[in-house]
Amino acid sequence: MDCVVNCSAYAKGRKAASLDIDDLPSAMLEQDTFVWIGLQEPDGDMLKRIQKVFGLHDLAIEDALRAHQRPKLEAYGDVLFIVLRTAQMNGHVIDLGETHFFLGNNFLVTIRHGSSLSYVDVRARCESTPHLLQKGPAFALYSVMDFIVDQYFPVIDALEEELGSLEEKIFEETSKRETTQQIYLLKRQLLEVKRSVSPLLDICNKLMRFDLRLIDDETRPYFRDVYDHAVRINEMVDNARELLSTALEANLSLISISQNDVSKRFAGWAAIIGVPTMIAGIYGMNFDAMPELKWAFGYPVVLATIIGTCGLMFYFFRRSGWL
Amino acid sequence: MDCVVNCSAYAKGRKAASLDIDDLPSAMLEQDTFVWIGLQEPDGDMLKRIQKVFGLHDLAIEDALRAHQRPKLEAYGDVLFIVLRTAQMNGHVIDLGETHFFLGNNFLVTIRHGSSLSYVDVRARCESTPHLLQKGPAFALYSVMDFIVDQYFPVIDALEEELGSLEEKIFEETSKRETTQQIYLLKRQLLEVKRSVSPLLDICNKLMRFDLRLIDDETRPYFRDVYDHAVRINEMVDNARELLSTALEANLSLISISQNDVSKRFAGWAAIIGVPTMIAGIYGMNFDAMPELKWAFGYPVVLATIIGTCGLMFYFFRRSGWL
Amino acid sequence: MDCVVNCSAYAKGRKAASLDIDDLPSAMLEQDTFVWIGLQEPDGDMLKRIQKVFGLHDLAIEDALRAHQRPKLEAYGDVLFIVLRTAQMNGHVIDLGETHFFLGNNFLVTIRHGSSLSYVDVRARCESTPHLLQKGPAFALYSVMDFIVDQYFPVIDALEEELGSLEEKIFEETSKRETTQQIYLLKRQLLEVKRSVSPLLDICNKLMRFDLRLIDDETRPYFRDVYDHAVRINEMVDNARELLSTALEANLSLISISQNDVSKRFAGWAAIIGVPTMIAGIYGMNFDAMPELKWAFGYPVVLATIIGTCGLMFYFFRRSGWL
Amino acid sequence: MDCVVNCSAYAKGRKAASLDIDDLPSAMLEQDTFVWIGLQEPDGDMLKRIQKVFGLHDLAIEDALRAHQRPKLEAYGDVLFIVLRTAQMNGHVIDLGETHFFLGNNFLVTIRHGSSLSYVDVRARCESTPHLLQKGPAFALYSVMDFIVDQYFPVIDALEEELGSLEEKIFEETSKRETTQQIYLLKRQLLEVKRSVSPLLDICNKLMRFDLRLIDDETRPYFRDVYDHAVRINEMVDNARELLSTALEANLSLISISQNDVSKRFAGWAAIIGVPTMIAGIYGMNFDAMPELKWAFGYPVVLATIIGTCGLMFYFFRRSGWL
Amino acid sequence: MDCVVNCSAYAKGRKAASLDIDDLPSAMLEQDTFVWIGLQEPDGDMLKRIQKVFGLHDLAIEDALRAHQRPKLEAYGDVLFIVLRTAQMNGHVIDLGETHFFLGNNFLVTIRHGSSLSYVDVRARCESTPHLLQKGPAFALYSVMDFIVDQYFPVIDALEEELGSLEEKIFEETSKRETTQQIYLLKRQLLEVKRSVSPLLDICNKLMRFDLRLIDDETRPYFRDVYDHAVRINEMVDNARELLSTALEANLSLISISQNDVSKRFAGWAAIIGVPTMIAGIYGMNFDAMPELKWAFGYPVVLATIIGTCGLMFYFFRRSGWL
Repeated sequence: MDCVVNCSAYAKGRKAASLDIDDLPSAMLEQDTFVWIGLQEPDGDMLKRIQKVFGLHDLAIEDALRAHQRPKLEAYGDVLFIVLRTAQMNGHVIDLGETHFFLGNNFLVTIRHGSSLSYVDVRARCESTPHLLQKGPAFALYSVMDFIVDQYFPVIDALEEELGSLEEKIFEETSKRETTQQIYLLKRQLLEVKRSVSPLLDICNKLMRFDLRLIDDETRPYFRDVYDHAVRINEMVDNARELLSTALEANLSLISISQNDVSKRFAGWAAIIGVPTMIAGIYGMNFDAMPELKWAFGYPVVLATIIGTCGLMFYFFRRSGWL
Repeated sequence: MDCVVNCSAYAKGRKAASLDIDDLPSAMLEQDTFVWIGLQEPDGDMLKRIQKVFGLHDLAIEDALRAHQRPKLEAYGDVLFIVLRTAQMNGHVIDLGETHFFLGNNFLVTIRHGSSLSYVDVRARCESTPHLLQKGPAFALYSVMDFIVDQYFPVIDALEEELGSLEEKIFEETSKRETTQQIYLLKRQLLEVKRSVSPLLDICNKLMRFDLRLIDDETRPYFRDVYDHAVRINEMVDNARELLSTALEANLSLISISQNDVSKRFAGWAAIIGVPTMIAGIYGMNFDAMPELKWAFGYPVVLATIIGTCGLMFYFFRRSGWL
Repeated sequence: MDCVVNCSAYAKGRKAASLDIDDLPSAMLEQDTFVWIGLQEPDGDMLKRIQKVFGLHDLAIEDALRAHQRPKLEAYGDVLFIVLRTAQMNGHVIDLGETHFFLGNNFLVTIRHGSSLSYVDVRARCESTPHLLQKGPAFALYSVMDFIVDQYFPVIDALEEELGSLEEKIFEETSKRETTQQIYLLKRQLLEVKRSVSPLLDICNKLMRFDLRLIDDETRPYFRDVYDHAVRINEMVDNARELLSTALEANLSLISISQNDVSKRFAGWAAIIGVPTMIAGIYGMNFDAMPELKWAFGYPVVLATIIGTCGLMFYFFRRSGWL
Repeated sequence: MDCVVNCSAYAKGRKAASLDIDDLPSAMLEQDTFVWIGLQEPDGDMLKRIQKVFGLHDLAIEDALRAHQRPKLEAYGDVLFIVLRTAQMNGHVIDLGETHFFLGNNFLVTIRHGSSLSYVDVRARCESTPHLLQKGPAFALYSVMDFIVDQYFPVIDALEEELGSLEEKIFEETSKRETTQQIYLLKRQLLEVKRSVSPLLDICNKLMRFDLRLIDDETRPYFRDVYDHAVRINEMVDNARELLSTALEANLSLISISQNDVSKRFAGWAAIIGVPTMIAGIYGMNFDAMPELKWAFGYPVVLATIIGTCGLMFYFFRRSGWL
Repeated sequence: MDCVVNCSAYAKGRKAASLDIDDLPSAMLEQDTFVWIGLQEPDGDMLKRIQKVFGLHDLAIEDALRAHQRPKLEAYGDVLFIVLRTAQMNGHVIDLGETHFFLGNNFLVTIRHGSSLSYVDVRARCESTPHLLQKGPAFALYSVMDFIVDQYFPVIDALEEELGSLEEKIFEETSKRETTQQIYLLKRQLLEVKRSVSPLLDICNKLMRFDLRLIDDETRPYFRDVYDHAVRINEMVDNARELLSTALEANLSLISISQNDVSKRFAGWAAIIGVPTMIAGIYGMNFDAMPELKWAFGYPVVLATIIGTCGLMFYFFRRSGWL
């Protein structure tokens, strides 16, 4: 039974007992007590046992087993089923995971899928503030949600840093293919984070406002706090997205300016090489009667003319920014 | 009567009888029984008979005959008329079809148009879970809708794979005309899927929320499940669309960078060819007095100069990335 | 009085009498009878007579006279004033017109402005289904609206065909100025159709939902049908617009790729012409001591070198796609 | 007291008296009478006197003094404060002004700021329709608002004409820098008009729908008329904006096609000049043993070859559209 | 206790006493008196003392300590917690700060974080209008909010000026890399201001409309005034953003036109240099039989031809705008 990470009963905000899944039915009878169970990638059997104890809906259990859900909150009678997506930076890659919650009047079940930090610390922190934890399982839910949402801030920071370094690359002299590719990949990551975070606003809104008996008035402000964090993450992502599309356009402008510079420089040097070639060509003609060719100073004068013309062109092009 | 695929009566979630269309009027009188009829591209006559038995509205029957409707849900008195679009991958092409539903208190009529999988399996699966099927025809409706929506996932997967292979093509060295054309075609396919799926959100919403007596409280969560799938498909399409437009812009940037590279390489080689031509031109002039021409080492020195200059230019251009 | 196209009284869904405008006041007194008047570009006098008979509002009469309104529905007491825009393809041009309606408890006035098909056929079709027409003037209104909206489908088909032929032009080898101009013109036409159709959604919505005593419950589904058609037209236009902007961007990409191809081909041929010129230039130098020049095989060897080099370059450029 | 343009009392829709500001307090006591005051850029003193007579709110008076407000409607107790922006074409420039209104139960104060036409004509027209003006100060408000909104139509017409002439410039052969600049400037003007007009929709909506005792049911349709005009102006601006951004993109495509044409033409002529140069270069080599040089017809044959090759290239390039 | 900038009690709109934090509990007991405390970057201890006196919520205190919140309004029981962002121009850089407010029935606490102007002047102005200040702490809140929002106008003015100078740079002859970079940076600044201002609309809306007992009817119009300013700032930012993206596109068009100009000019000069080179090459051939070479006027005629051709080409290119 490896998938049960922790299963404890809490009374008046303090841990009353460590339970085995088999003890749950009897434990659920005690008053003023709630049970908090942490599962990790449970198999169908385990979920069916949990379902039986707490009377959960088939559809929710199916979702909890299959994972790869989008974040959502669904009420099945007196039980809330919540799906959140978790995110962590792993080097330059975002590791996504999922956590599902079943929140009842006197129980909270958390189910972790994929890569995500353990909620041991969250539980410990809750246990250290009994006056808060005694608000019931909704407060435990808040604690884990708050932890999950806070994990997004370093992700966003990493993406904003990436954006910053992309900006530098875009505005430096040479445009590289990799920069454009990185812009695209960053956009893809931002969309991924956006997809994970934006449904949170709706979920928190429901937890704050709806006429849910499961969440009392004192606990609601805590979900407003989670909402507030989700709004901020969302805003940062939207901001980065808008900057990124401007960056992509600016990138194109700069590539065109580079192209312009290349053309100008090429044209300048082509003229500086072409004019001597033309002059030399003319004095390479084989006419019998070309007085200059006989002239003793013909060669040096033509050479000087060539050098002078090229010098003038160089000066002129340099001044007008073509070279 | 080829267009009648199946016509059965169900009582307490179990199949009670296989009916003929002509038996319907009497069958409809039995209590706690509902009839589930499957039609495929019925003609006007058949539809009129169905209309007469169940008292369906003229406008709905007209729509059911003509097909090429957009997905919608319309209530005509106590009968719901629902139109869904179905989709399947057929190689690289998306085959679209349509399915229409008439849902009444004790009947469900499904009408298939165009290419779509048969609903025989769905019916079989329903019959294997009598405790669910006894919820009535609304549950049968759910089963078919769920089946239809699930058919979209492989379509989306195929489109996302296509997007992935396009990304590779975009970011590889040479930009091809076909890549741009494929981006456009993928966009068109995404819009097509979007048009088929997005009205589903509204339809499911109505099934979940509206004050419809046809759908009882126990069945509603099932439509929320369909809604959830539709939201996910919708989100995937939107995501792919946004990535695709970024890809199109990135594509343009990369084409411009390629253009830049071509220009630079051309300019570099033009210089390496142009400078020897110029020097050779000068020593091809026919002046009588050109001391270098008489000099025994004139030719090798000039040759060496030419080769040296070209070598230097080559080194310089290579270092600055022009070659 | 040329502007009166038709003026009849209907009782129980059947035509009771052809009326003259002057007979209207007395005809209006009969019970269970409604009057349906068709006008075409009436002048101010005619409109004032109509206004007097039916007690219409000044502002609506002013609008009906001036035309060039946007589609709208306005309730003035017990009378609805509705403005629709009509469209027909006339070769490659969209002919736009306007039709105004005054709908009262026992009358319907339709006023045609600009190019639009006659409503004679609509009236005939209504008269052939007395069981429907007896629902009252609201059904007559529906019949004309349905006719007007159906006229948009061929327009949309023509625009989608145009889009299809534009796609072909965009993806064929050479980019032409006309293609870009046609994209722009198609966009303008789509916007025009959009402006004519999108207010229809709002109008139909009001006819379906609002607490209008003029439209009874039995007639409402018919307006939902018009609404459904309007939604489909709207969707087709939006779809075409989105495809068109992608097409415009794809067009730009393809123009840039063409530019790239031109540059590459030019660079390739320039090299193939430039290298022989350079080699020839070198052997055109006038140094006294150039041993190759004296060599009997000098010329053929150089010629062979030139041809060989050019051949190699040709092969190399061809292989790498530059030629 | 130059800033008072007009100050009159109206009873039963007819002008009862021309008043001095000092007579206002007594005039306000008479029943069935309302006062209509027109001010132009009043100073603080005048506004304070007005404020005292009608009991206006400090914040509204402050706004009325400072001008440069955005269009808005604010209710202060029983008084409405309305700000509108006026616009007129002055050559190619749009002259913007502002008009503020205080509407009370028995008074209307209009305050003009900046360039705007006088409202003398509006007042005269109102006085000529006493049966309408007797609806009270709300009708006077309507008359001025209608006048202001109608002033936008010629502005929009001028901008659409400008757009039309820009289209022509874009699609003619040569792309000019000025065209792009004019597109930008037109966009800026459209945004300016949009900012002035779009708040009008909200203002009219409030006047039509809100539970304002100041505006009776009979007067509301008149504000719906203003609303309708505002919608049309708004739509025209949005239309022009969308066309303009398509025009900007089309412009870029056409510039790129021009660039393509330049490159092709250049490449063609470069080949036609380069090939003779190459051939001539070869026969300019100084090999002792070049049999062609001795041949009597060498020169004419080479000349003919050169001319023939160039002719062929010219024909080929012309046919494939490069020249 | 440096972080306490000011702490005073007000009765009937007049300053009644300067208080020490320790005196607060007793001062809070007096009727018709409210306390206004100004803090600057308080530490946790100070905030805990404040929390204890006024009974503030843990979550709000945590936010007030950490700063870096987004603007928001949160109600905790009878206390409002408001976060605003402040902005000031510091040369070309926007200095952002934060101010937090706790508004209770008889107290206002303002907490400044980061760079922001002192609120000493605001307090002084409030004290000079006792008839307004006696409306209570909500009016004091308004005064500070109004001050904060007004600080945004010079920021917007600076950004619009920047946009104006960018426009000039874009439309002048040469496109520079810096211009594109500046467009990007301005976009980033606009997004930053937008993020600070747009939540204000929601905050003011809540203060104006919600059923908050803390804000009486007389004070609400003042928050509508703040709302109005926030709308204007928001609109200016949106306007600048839309112009900026058009500017970016126009910039790209102009860069492409420049590119075109460079290509044309280069092509023109290449022809003018290439043609003489070709002609000279031909007369540089070494055929024995080239009659022109023997001709006495051969050289001057060829020279004249060359000069004439170049002159013609120059004239032609100049006329068609290529040079």
